[in-house]
Amino acid sequence: MLRAVDIIIKKRDGFTLTNEEIHFIINGYVKGDIPDYQMSSLLMAIYYNGLNKQEQAAFTMEMLRSGEASDLSSIPGICIDKHSTGGVGDKTTLVFAPIVAACGLKVAKMSGRGLGFTGGTLDKLESIPGFNISLSSEAFLNQVRKIGISVIGQTANIVPADKKLYALRDVTGTVDSIGLIASSIMSKKLASGASKILLDVKVGEGSFMKTLKDARKLARSMVDIGNSLGRNTVAVLTNMSEPLGTMVGNSLEVIEAIETLKGRGHKQFTELCYELAAQMLIMANIKSNRNDAL
Amino acid sequence: MLRAVDIIIKKRDGFTLTNEEIHFIINGYVKGDIPDYQMSSLLMAIYYNGLNKQEQAAFTMEMLRSGEASDLSSIPGICIDKHSTGGVGDKTTLVFAPIVAACGLKVAKMSGRGLGFTGGTLDKLESIPGFNISLSSEAFLNQVRKIGISVIGQTANIVPADKKLYALRDVTGTVDSIGLIASSIMSKKLASGASKILLDVKVGEGSFMKTLKDARKLARSMVDIGNSLGRNTVAVLTNMSEPLGTMVGNSLEVIEAIETLKGRGHKQFTELCYELAAQMLIMANIKSNRNDAL
Repeated sequence: MLRAVDIIIKKRDGFTLTNEEIHFIINGYVKGDIPDYQMSSLLMAIYYNGLNKQEQAAFTMEMLRSGEASDLSSIPGICIDKHSTGGVGDKTTLVFAPIVAACGLKVAKMSGRGLGFTGGTLDKLESIPGFNISLSSEAFLNQVRKIGISVIGQTANIVPADKKLYALRDVTGTVDSIGLIASSIMSKKLASGASKILLDVKVGEGSFMKTLKDARKLARSMVDIGNSLGRNTVAVLTNMSEPLGTMVGNSLEVIEAIETLKGRGHKQFTELCYELAAQMLIMANIKSNRNDAL
Repeated sequence: MLRAVDIIIKKRDGFTLTNEEIHFIINGYVKGDIPDYQMSSLLMAIYYNGLNKQEQAAFTMEMLRSGEASDLSSIPGICIDKHSTGGVGDKTTLVFAPIVAACGLKVAKMSGRGLGFTGGTLDKLESIPGFNISLSSEAFLNQVRKIGISVIGQTANIVPADKKLYALRDVTGTVDSIGLIASSIMSKKLASGASKILLDVKVGEGSFMKTLKDARKLARSMVDIGNSLGRNTVAVLTNMSEPLGTMVGNSLEVIEAIETLKGRGHKQFTELCYELAAQMLIMANIKSNRNDAL
C-alpha cells in the first residue's frame, strides 16, 4: 500500500521514484486524494534532487493521461508542432508556421499566453481584429485539412494535472526545476497530438534559461522525454541575449512577422525562422540536409 | 509587503530569514493566512538548508507566542524543568523529579505522551490507578507550592503553532530536521514557565538521534535557544544504545522507578538519575560541584 509521505521521504533522501509511485502521486493529486501540502513538499524535494530520465518520462506520461489528447489521425500527411521556451520579441511561430505549411507540412498547433516577461503567441494573434483562437475541435481539424495550418488556444481540458501543478508550483517556490519544466512543456506538446516536435530552447538574458548549461539540460530533458514516449523530437538552442527582431508588442510583432514573410525582415530574425523551418523539413524527410532545406 | 512565496524562495536558495519574516510565516500560519501547502514547501526547504542560531530562536519565540505560557511567578523558589528526547524504557522523570523536589527545588512539569517507538511519562503515570494528569492550572500551582512537585499533561492551548506544524511535518516528510525539532521542544519548554531547563538528549539505537554527532547538534541547538531566550539551559548527552533499566512497559516502569527511589534500582539507570539530579542541583546553586551533589 503506497503512502504519499513515504514517497516524499524517498525523493527527499535522493532515491528514484518508480513509475507506480509517480502514477500514485499524479493520479491521486488530480483526483484530490493527495492534498496540496503533500504535493508541495514533494515538489520542493524534486527541486533539490531533480528527476532522472525515467522519472521525467513517467511524470510526463501521467500528466498527459490526466486529460484528453488531440487525435490528429484524420489529417493526411505529417503533423508537426513547434515549441519555444519563450523570449522577448519571439514571434517565430508567426513566420515559421506558414513557411513549413507552404512546404506541405500540417501545422496543428496549440499555443499559449504570455508567461512572466515573455509574450504569448495567442496574445499576438488576438491583436489581429476578428482573429478567433477558440475554434471547436472539428473546425480546427477542418482548417488544418483545408489550408494546412491552424493555431488555437489550449483547450480547458488539456493536461489538467499540469494546470493544477503549475498553479501550486507558482506559489510554493518550485517553478525553477528543470525536470518539472520539461515534464510540463512535454505533457502539453504530447497532448497536442503531433508526431514530430521541434523545440526552440532560448538561452540568455531575455529568456528563462540564462546559461547555456541550463538551456542544454532543459533541451536534453525534453528531447529524451519526447523520444522515449514515441515522438520524433529535436531541440535547437537559440540566442536570446537580446530581443528577437526589432519589434516588441503584440500588434507590432504581427506586423514584423508579416514583413519577414514578405522578405523584408530583420536579418538575424529571418535567419532564425529559416533555420527552424529547415530543421523541421529535415525531420519530416522533405529535405535531406540543411543546405538543401535552406 | 512580505509574501510567503518570496520567503520560501529565500530559504530554498540558502539565505537566512529575518525575525520579521519568521514572524510573518508562523503568525500567518497559525491565523490561517498562510496555507499548509506553502508551509510544507518551506519546511522542506528548511529540511535541506537548516535554521541558524538566530532563526531557531525566532522560530521558537514565534511558536511560543502563539499560545499561553504558564506563569510560575507565584511559586516561591526555583522552578525547574527537565526534558528527555525520549528512548525505550526512559522512566527518568519518575525518579529524577522526586529526588530534586526533596532537595528543595520546585518541579512544575508538563509531560508528553509516547511518540513513535518511545513511551511517554504521561502514559506511565496513568498506569497508576486514579492518577490525574489533567489538573486545573490553579490546582497544579497549589500542588507545587504545597509538596514541591506536580506533573501534568500539556494543556490544549500550549503552543498551538507547534501542534499545527507538527501535524503537517508528520505527513510531509519534514519531521527529521534538527532545527525544527529543537524549536518544537524548546517552545514547549519555554511555555512551561520554568527558569531552569535540563535537557537529556539520548543517543543511540533506542532513541531518535542515532549518532553522537546529531545528538550533539540537537543539544547545542536547544541550549542556544534556551539561553538566548533568557532561560538557564543545560544539556547532557546520555547513552540509549539499549533500553534504560530492566523494565519496559507503562506500569512496569512505574514499579521500577519506585524500586530505584528505594535504592534497589538497576545500577546504570540509578547512576543516570543521580547524574541528572546532580546537574540540576548545580544549576540551581544548591550544590557547587558534581562530587558534592552526588
